[in-house]
Amino acid sequence: MNTEELNIVDILLIEDNPNDVELTLRALKKVNILNKIHVLSDGAEALDFFFRKGKYSNRNSKNEPKVIILDLKLPKVNGLEILRNLKGDENLKTIPVVVLTSSREEQDVVESYKLGVNSYIVKPVDFEKFIEAVKELGFYWLLLNQPPK
Amino acid sequence: MNTEELNIVDILLIEDNPNDVELTLRALKKVNILNKIHVLSDGAEALDFFFRKGKYSNRNSKNEPKVIILDLKLPKVNGLEILRNLKGDENLKTIPVVVLTSSREEQDVVESYKLGVNSYIVKPVDFEKFIEAVKELGFYWLLLNQPPK
Repeated sequence: MNTEELNIVDILLIEDNPNDVELTLRALKKVNILNKIHVLSDGAEALDFFFRKGKYSNRNSKNEPKVIILDLKLPKVNGLEILRNLKGDENLKTIPVVVLTSSREEQDVVESYKLGVNSYIVKPVDFEKFIEAVKELGFYWLLLNQPPK
Repeated sequence: MNTEELNIVDILLIEDNPNDVELTLRALKKVNILNKIHVLSDGAEALDFFFRKGKYSNRNSKNEPKVIILDLKLPKVNGLEILRNLKGDENLKTIPVVVLTSSREEQDVVESYKLGVNSYIVKPVDFEKFIEAVKELGFYWLLLNQPPK
């Protein structure tokens, strides 16, 4: 994805599991929103993206994603730490973040809300239910929710 | 609604416009979640509810609503002030809050996100679209989103 395309990302998916990435993209394709997705597979790269470092130093931050889908277990920097960084930044905190994780741990749920997550969704184990959940998620955050401009 | 019923509220609707209350309840009924809703029609009463004052002093706060639907223009205390109180409280901040308002003002959108709103939805003017939006909202926050226990 070149720099220009990076400036029109609608969904930023931060997920390291290739199967979950594939399922998520497939589900989003079904609601016709595949073409404006960017996938990051580790937490350090995600921080580079948001804070425009490394290969993202030229990223235009005028058009931030309409929603970030964030896994919790990530290489290098975990999801809660990314959430803490995003919601602790006066500009980035306005971007909706949905945690999509296999963790049902109450500690993860509560900590996510305390850090300011917008929504927390447990990944359904069942394949079809996973697809349905992501479709709903995409529909809700791209078509119903009003993000800041 | 008696005290016991108040302890199992799933949706707390804070809305002063009787037409919008009726439409919202009708829409939620269609997704079979009417029986656990409580409606508050002014901002001062909402603060009493959350901080267990006045007639809500005996409310059990162990089971907080799974989602709060919050209008912005409210009598006595406005929606942004309620949001500030909720998200400024270490325990209450974990309850998902969806602003449902007729305001498209970017200032209201950005301020809501900065205060920590979970989602911001502009009330569709069209009757059918309003019903659809509320149905989606109810489905998403009651069946898909994982609130803290």
